[in-house]
Amino acid sequence: MNPYEYLETHRDTFLEELIELLRIPSISTLSTHDDDVRRAAEWMASHLKAIGMTTVEVVKTKRHPIVYAEWLGAPGKPTVLIYGHYDVQPVDDPEGHWNTDPFEPVIRDGHLYARGATDDKGQTFIQMKAIQALMQTGEMPVNVKFVIEGEEESGSDNLYPFIEENVERLAADIVVISDTGMKSLEAPSIVYGLRGITYVEVEVRGPAHDLHSGSFGGIVHNPAQALVEILAQLHDEEGRITVPGFYDRVVVPDAEERAELSKTPIAEDKLRRETGIPQSWGEAGYALHERAGIRPTLEINGLVSGWTGEGTKTVLPAKALAKVSCRTVPEQDPVEIYELVRDHVKALTPPTVTSEVRLLHKGHWAVVDIQSPEMQAAMHAFEFGFGKRPTVVREGGSIPVVGSFQSALKAPVVLLGFGLPDDNLHGPNEKFTLACFDGGLKTLVKFYETVGAQA
Amino acid sequence: MNPYEYLETHRDTFLEELIELLRIPSISTLSTHDDDVRRAAEWMASHLKAIGMTTVEVVKTKRHPIVYAEWLGAPGKPTVLIYGHYDVQPVDDPEGHWNTDPFEPVIRDGHLYARGATDDKGQTFIQMKAIQALMQTGEMPVNVKFVIEGEEESGSDNLYPFIEENVERLAADIVVISDTGMKSLEAPSIVYGLRGITYVEVEVRGPAHDLHSGSFGGIVHNPAQALVEILAQLHDEEGRITVPGFYDRVVVPDAEERAELSKTPIAEDKLRRETGIPQSWGEAGYALHERAGIRPTLEINGLVSGWTGEGTKTVLPAKALAKVSCRTVPEQDPVEIYELVRDHVKALTPPTVTSEVRLLHKGHWAVVDIQSPEMQAAMHAFEFGFGKRPTVVREGGSIPVVGSFQSALKAPVVLLGFGLPDDNLHGPNEKFTLACFDGGLKTLVKFYETVGAQA
Repeated sequence: MNPYEYLETHRDTFLEELIELLRIPSISTLSTHDDDVRRAAEWMASHLKAIGMTTVEVVKTKRHPIVYAEWLGAPGKPTVLIYGHYDVQPVDDPEGHWNTDPFEPVIRDGHLYARGATDDKGQTFIQMKAIQALMQTGEMPVNVKFVIEGEEESGSDNLYPFIEENVERLAADIVVISDTGMKSLEAPSIVYGLRGITYVEVEVRGPAHDLHSGSFGGIVHNPAQALVEILAQLHDEEGRITVPGFYDRVVVPDAEERAELSKTPIAEDKLRRETGIPQSWGEAGYALHERAGIRPTLEINGLVSGWTGEGTKTVLPAKALAKVSCRTVPEQDPVEIYELVRDHVKALTPPTVTSEVRLLHKGHWAVVDIQSPEMQAAMHAFEFGFGKRPTVVREGGSIPVVGSFQSALKAPVVLLGFGLPDDNLHGPNEKFTLACFDGGLKTLVKFYETVGAQA
Repeated sequence: MNPYEYLETHRDTFLEELIELLRIPSISTLSTHDDDVRRAAEWMASHLKAIGMTTVEVVKTKRHPIVYAEWLGAPGKPTVLIYGHYDVQPVDDPEGHWNTDPFEPVIRDGHLYARGATDDKGQTFIQMKAIQALMQTGEMPVNVKFVIEGEEESGSDNLYPFIEENVERLAADIVVISDTGMKSLEAPSIVYGLRGITYVEVEVRGPAHDLHSGSFGGIVHNPAQALVEILAQLHDEEGRITVPGFYDRVVVPDAEERAELSKTPIAEDKLRRETGIPQSWGEAGYALHERAGIRPTLEINGLVSGWTGEGTKTVLPAKALAKVSCRTVPEQDPVEIYELVRDHVKALTPPTVTSEVRLLHKGHWAVVDIQSPEMQAAMHAFEFGFGKRPTVVREGGSIPVVGSFQSALKAPVVLLGFGLPDDNLHGPNEKFTLACFDGGLKTLVKFYETVGAQA
């Protein structure tokens, strides 16, 4: 039996196992779920043992454990380090958008619905199953290490020190991450670039406490007004960010790379249909897929000031707060971007109020060399798994751990992601499409076979 | 014993009674406090009976009751209708700015601290005590009617129909309202003009649901950004409101009235000290007291969009909301102002999002004739109560009921208000200064004596 036949034979068992894992509500950001997070880590560890890993460890951290496992029984073959996460996003569904219980997985019309179905339990799970299929059916083409963390959805605070402290143990020839997506089943794609992130909080303060808007309106600069006046100046009329120096380090990919990227465009009508927006928006001079991939952004993620309840309150608020994040691209520096935004907000702040910009979170962008043998192996594997040569794309989101692996382990990172744009990661009715589950398994097996053969 | 001696003799009892009233958390806007609001109404009714009113009624409405009382035992004498309210603002103090429990009144350094201490339980209370002092010490100079509502802080929705339906019953020669303030104890002042109000909610909508700001940032117009861009355009660089037609009906008072008003300026340093702001703000070409009195304003009372909790969430919000209110002046029309703002927001809304402006609340401005005998009696009484002839001011706040009384009862309205600028109405540590309590009582007794003598 070859590994592909093994995958087909065991499909039902695999799905049952994944459903068992998805039932554990391992929401890492909510401490009320700490026990569930621990249960998910233990599930992972015992599963890694079951598929044949020789060393399996649940590593304690200050918060949620990291599951580490390895099998190094193929001396002379390359070593792959597979990263994934077993924690999930909160549900947070006051308006009841979920059609079924997020932690009672359901297969419907070819999709598996559950929180974490794609992000990232489902994708981490098929990595384990691909390795299992290879181990059960012949000689292993690669050595394997697994690092599966439980804090990806809450900042990965303990993963970075773990990597730094275990550089030798984690040493690998390739790092593989399945935590991204492709454009569609018909047009598979591989992410080779991710944006970085610099997330800040902008606070504008005026009076020492809330005032009566009748008595003081017109003579006290309303901090909410000052804030909107500052924020409105952060983009010009053509959608460009006005922060001085913001674009200085931005490298626009060359014509060849832009041509390659243009093979995976974002269609205006599809974007409208998928999001419900009346019309797209963005920086003049760039196509939609470029605005979302190779160009940096500055987004308001939250606004709050004064009275936000029902009805009216005639308050002149003491302060106003905005959450603002920048998605960064090569060669921008996340800390420098913070400093530039902070200084610009300071410069835009009128003498009638005060302001402060606080850095809340940052992560580095990452780009993988398309021409590397690993990427070529990935493209070959995708073509095998999905029947069509994949295009390459720059993803707008951020996976800061990619940069950490690149710099700490000096190893190339390959992103083998099998999500789809409508999988609703972080949203209601998250799903994993079974065609992605099947195609992903085939792709992974082929990838490891190819990497092993390249060596 | 004359009424002034009576006031002195009974001061301690009066304060104890007021503290009892202030203990009732009669927050009219929160339905969880409905029982408290009813208790406050009953307290008022039984107190009005106790001071000698012959008819006392707790009038049911669709929401909170109106307390009506009358004593008409002085035929031939003028009838005064005293308006006040027994409901209070919410506390809404997440950061713990209150030094003591808002509903456990405390006297400290000559001030009585409690929610409603000035606005308006304290001021309504001293009206009752002034009438009591007159009734207990001699012949009444006036007939008295009381209308005390429980919805002033939540829109007075049921008061207007009550006035309209009871025009004959409420008939009076003068309407007296103690729900305003004076500039300081050393420089007493009487409010003769109030601004109107038009309160709207501006909602900007983009995608059908929240999106991932990494995947969609840069191609979907962020509704929070669109909102701040719209709001930032509502004032020009000189603090003028840019809504077309907004100022068309505004009447600037003549030179004589402006000269009179300039006797009660707002000092920059005092404003900074009282509010904690670094510098004043406002419309070019007008003094501070004019910006806050005779000029209209447009204020942001609240902002909310996306993630407003601690830390970070990389959301591109589906919608953004602002609460915006305009303070209006003669001869602006509250509904027309709503239509102008609505149309301007619509015109400023880019095709990448949609917007809606909803009218939440409106009230008419009011101006009282300074030369009328009632206003002259009021000035005389203030001079007696506070030892100095008062100046006249236009107040920035709104008491929409003033206009309703003027138009429905065809009676002059006099505003005898004893708050101070730092009383923190609607804010934390609301207080009533005891010197205002004492001076207010003397002023009210003198006012009713003077009005009685004028007849």
